[in-house]
Amino acid sequence: MFERVAVVGVGLIGGSFALACREAVGCQLFGVDKDPNAVQKAKELGILHEGSTQVEDLKGFNPQLVVLATPVGSFTSLARRLRETLSPECVVSDVGSVKGRLVYELEEILGGRYVGGHPIAGTEKAGVQHAERGLFSGRRFILTPTQRTDPRAKTEVKELWQSMGALVEEMDPELHDFIFGAVSHMPHAVAFALVRAIEYLSNSLDLFKYPGGGFKDFTRIAGSDPVMWRDIFLHNSEQVLKSLQVFEGALRELQGLIERGEKEALTQYLGLASARRRSLSE
Amino acid sequence: MFERVAVVGVGLIGGSFALACREAVGCQLFGVDKDPNAVQKAKELGILHEGSTQVEDLKGFNPQLVVLATPVGSFTSLARRLRETLSPECVVSDVGSVKGRLVYELEEILGGRYVGGHPIAGTEKAGVQHAERGLFSGRRFILTPTQRTDPRAKTEVKELWQSMGALVEEMDPELHDFIFGAVSHMPHAVAFALVRAIEYLSNSLDLFKYPGGGFKDFTRIAGSDPVMWRDIFLHNSEQVLKSLQVFEGALRELQGLIERGEKEALTQYLGLASARRRSLSE
Repeated sequence: MFERVAVVGVGLIGGSFALACREAVGCQLFGVDKDPNAVQKAKELGILHEGSTQVEDLKGFNPQLVVLATPVGSFTSLARRLRETLSPECVVSDVGSVKGRLVYELEEILGGRYVGGHPIAGTEKAGVQHAERGLFSGRRFILTPTQRTDPRAKTEVKELWQSMGALVEEMDPELHDFIFGAVSHMPHAVAFALVRAIEYLSNSLDLFKYPGGGFKDFTRIAGSDPVMWRDIFLHNSEQVLKSLQVFEGALRELQGLIERGEKEALTQYLGLASARRRSLSE
Repeated sequence: MFERVAVVGVGLIGGSFALACREAVGCQLFGVDKDPNAVQKAKELGILHEGSTQVEDLKGFNPQLVVLATPVGSFTSLARRLRETLSPECVVSDVGSVKGRLVYELEEILGGRYVGGHPIAGTEKAGVQHAERGLFSGRRFILTPTQRTDPRAKTEVKELWQSMGALVEEMDPELHDFIFGAVSHMPHAVAFALVRAIEYLSNSLDLFKYPGGGFKDFTRIAGSDPVMWRDIFLHNSEQVLKSLQVFEGALRELQGLIERGEKEALTQYLGLASARRRSLSE
């Protein structure tokens, strides 16, 4: 098991990983974040043993595992800096919401010791002060190995997440991006657009003063970190845009039924959606 | 204060109203629902004193207030039957999510004793078994009187809801439909369409097996009652469709930013939405 672990990006997910990892395997934890306050805060909260604003400072710590927990847009440049800094045996993984092509780009830089991962957990909150030790317990963790992945590195990352209570599932990087493009990225895009739409509709009247009727629940995810989501949308743009097209089609179908007053077909449309949503366990 | 109150439509809202009303003013409660099981269940749960499947049975009960709590599409036909059944002094109100033209149609049938109302409360659950005594306490209740509304009827309905703990706000019927078309009806349409879209995207793979990343919270309101929402969409179609058009514009703007990879503008778009959503108190 890993004795020295580093996390790059000390936010909600990075901080929660650090807490869970320390508890699970009792390792030393080094954190890197470009914001010195995040590093300081995490040390004060007992999340990190050591920290720095520069990945180059990992040299002295000599980690056996580095986990990237920054917005995905920074992954390739971080990987290049890590390649110059880390020992060749150090395993590198991540918790990014996008896999697909990005996985192959990171392999190109880091080789088979890179293992892509994505914990299906998180909230609309951001910042290490919201870190939770049990955030990943009982939640899915998607591992996206390729033919090039070093089997030992894969097994070690897998066992680490299992020891933190996560339910590890292996998946092709492209399939990952299709699935989460549809069930997570596309709905987030819709939620952001919905809040913008209410803003546009608030001409003379502040509509945000009337947040009843499910609006708050519905748009909670639109409070998520904009830089994180910008990177997700740009790096999984193909799947996000495809899913949004299907959504637009479904919405136009509904608009048509309302416009033409098609009572029967409208009841059926809403009934199918309602039954499907209710079928999901809470 | 009212001593004999009837509610037509014994579901989540009708049942919660009955419970709150009895507690607030200690009145006798008669419930009407076309489903005999709902009436039976409500009597067993101690929500109603009496009940029937026919509004005509209200004649013997001689209520001083009748509250419509069925899907809004049934309001005008119910109002015609009530006009033949009730004493001319009986006040009629409702808890429907649509006002606007419907208010004038009901006034046309019932006269100034009709007072439109809409409690901003409720959940995606349906059925009298989910009724809650405190559902309206501390929540907004929108009253939509017109020039024709009998001032005494208005005051009595207002005081009843205040005694149940609701925060009563008066509003023009058309303004009501604009506001709630935007902040409630349109988001519900979006949520229903989103669940349909995920269904369409689930070709060979059941995407509903991956409900992480906020999808459940985001689509919770799509589990709402289809008949209730069919009626809301059809009776407030003008405002719902207008709001959906604005939403489509906002979404297309976002799609364009993603497609063209406009990093700066995308960050700004998401940042504005995120900050706005975070500004709402929980």
